[in-house]
Amino acid sequence: MEKTTVTLNDVCEAARRIKPYVIRTPLMRGRTMDKVLGCKVYLKPEMLQVTGAFKMRGAMNKILSLSQEERDRGIICSSSGNHGQACALAGNITGTHVVVVLPEDAPHVKIDKARELGAEVVLGPRIYKERWKMVRELQEKNGYTMAHGYEDYTVMAGQGTIGLEILEDLPYVDTVFVPVGGGGLIAGVATAIKEINPKVRIIGVQAKASDGYVQSRKAGRRVEVECFPSLADGLGCRAPGENPYPICEKYVDEFVSVTEEDIKEAAKLVAAEAKLIAEPSSCVGIAAVLGGEVKVEQHENAAFILTSGNWDIDAIGKILNNEHVDGRL
Amino acid sequence: MEKTTVTLNDVCEAARRIKPYVIRTPLMRGRTMDKVLGCKVYLKPEMLQVTGAFKMRGAMNKILSLSQEERDRGIICSSSGNHGQACALAGNITGTHVVVVLPEDAPHVKIDKARELGAEVVLGPRIYKERWKMVRELQEKNGYTMAHGYEDYTVMAGQGTIGLEILEDLPYVDTVFVPVGGGGLIAGVATAIKEINPKVRIIGVQAKASDGYVQSRKAGRRVEVECFPSLADGLGCRAPGENPYPICEKYVDEFVSVTEEDIKEAAKLVAAEAKLIAEPSSCVGIAAVLGGEVKVEQHENAAFILTSGNWDIDAIGKILNNEHVDGRL
Repeated sequence: MEKTTVTLNDVCEAARRIKPYVIRTPLMRGRTMDKVLGCKVYLKPEMLQVTGAFKMRGAMNKILSLSQEERDRGIICSSSGNHGQACALAGNITGTHVVVVLPEDAPHVKIDKARELGAEVVLGPRIYKERWKMVRELQEKNGYTMAHGYEDYTVMAGQGTIGLEILEDLPYVDTVFVPVGGGGLIAGVATAIKEINPKVRIIGVQAKASDGYVQSRKAGRRVEVECFPSLADGLGCRAPGENPYPICEKYVDEFVSVTEEDIKEAAKLVAAEAKLIAEPSSCVGIAAVLGGEVKVEQHENAAFILTSGNWDIDAIGKILNNEHVDGRL
Repeated sequence: MEKTTVTLNDVCEAARRIKPYVIRTPLMRGRTMDKVLGCKVYLKPEMLQVTGAFKMRGAMNKILSLSQEERDRGIICSSSGNHGQACALAGNITGTHVVVVLPEDAPHVKIDKARELGAEVVLGPRIYKERWKMVRELQEKNGYTMAHGYEDYTVMAGQGTIGLEILEDLPYVDTVFVPVGGGGLIAGVATAIKEINPKVRIIGVQAKASDGYVQSRKAGRRVEVECFPSLADGLGCRAPGENPYPICEKYVDEFVSVTEEDIKEAAKLVAAEAKLIAEPSSCVGIAAVLGGEVKVEQHENAAFILTSGNWDIDAIGKILNNEHVDGRL
């Protein structure tokens, strides 16, 4: 039966399924950040996850949910970033053929990384819609299962396990800040948390440069926005994902967006105080509090999901040393 | 009775004593570093420890081991770095008066930090021996207990808890790499590990710029060496500590030293692969393998103690971005 949403039960099943393959990241207390952020700070450091990003949870859940016949045919995804790497490794672990479609101008390091992890890399057109057409064609021709990074309910359920873990470690969490691109992560996390405790406040955070969810919430419907280059290049969002959108409407209390300047400050704060390398996309939640986009109270238990640490390490070095770094589309 | 060494029993007692106050840091598997280092990599990330450094273990054990009368009189230490901060916080937690003696030209940020944590800061002469004279005078005049960063056996026992935790998490560890300055950390860790399993190889690592233990091992006695500026400024070692030295002679298999270039490469590797901010001093163990100073085998379980993450974040940024950074004395 085709799934039409994600449920708490799906997330709990995902947690059992992926447990042997992922790291149960700790919820770190960021005591030295309390003062500057004005609340009790907790960090969920998914840069310490396998592949350096939370995406392993969703990719692993997807592959482990397939029938043997589906696994034998293989899966396909289109992602030059963390989702592609996660699918490649999940395929490697389970002996499943994985095709990763990348734009033909993708950096060599990303192509090599996917291949190293055992995936078949197919280079396609630079233009998003044309590339997706190619992905669909390959899928149909070869009988691959599609593992979409944020439209897939099984992938969302895998990402939602982060929400379960936050509640396990901090039952009295008041607010959870979630970086939002396509919306797969927040759809899973919000489902898990709100179906257990509806009082927890869920805040989705985007870059102002790419704020499809913020504008859609304002408009009351899914709208397309123009996207600009951003340091938070992992959170591209021309429009909310079709499938996560209604889930977010139901469960996400608020969407806010942050400036490039606040993203940089947040990345520096995480490095200096929490000693973690966070890619800029990871830091939008902290940026939202730093920049005053979200009000918090001194005794509020605020959990920030830090999604990934996979960025050019020299560019992160520049941010830490207050040098200029260009945003990316 | 005055202690004359540190024993496994002391370390086990320390572990029970400090447990409520310190973070049980995980032993992280650094799978993506296996290839470049040529062994199975495990990291003990003490930058995630309270105060951002392992020193909290020793300081907390010291204060908790005092009688109520001693605590009422207070403690004194001399350290502009992590040990001073740890003593300040341990004093704060236990309601013990702590005096931190700093050189008069210490950076304001370090003075402020110690005060913020509740310590009394006394500024003393820049010259090491003169400052220590002042410390002794203050101690005698006020009846303070001295909390020496590496000569104190109770402090060593606290640091040794890292060794216990490594053995708990990885009973089949083959080799443990320990950064060495005065020698308090390695004396505690080596005692804990060798008294449980003498087959584990313990390697002490210093910067070539400041290699008192390496030269002393060669000479067969404690010798003084000239020290040069180094990125690993936390590992200054004109001569081995008097008290840790015989313990190291008994339990440390090998002392090696590493170049500034290899320290930088190691810090970058830790940031890029493990997503951790490590101060250069933390990275000497990894530098030793990168630079070929220590031979390792493909199936060897090698644990690297990453001691701290407290360094100017902009200087760490420069290292990550391949810019020049001056060493420090």
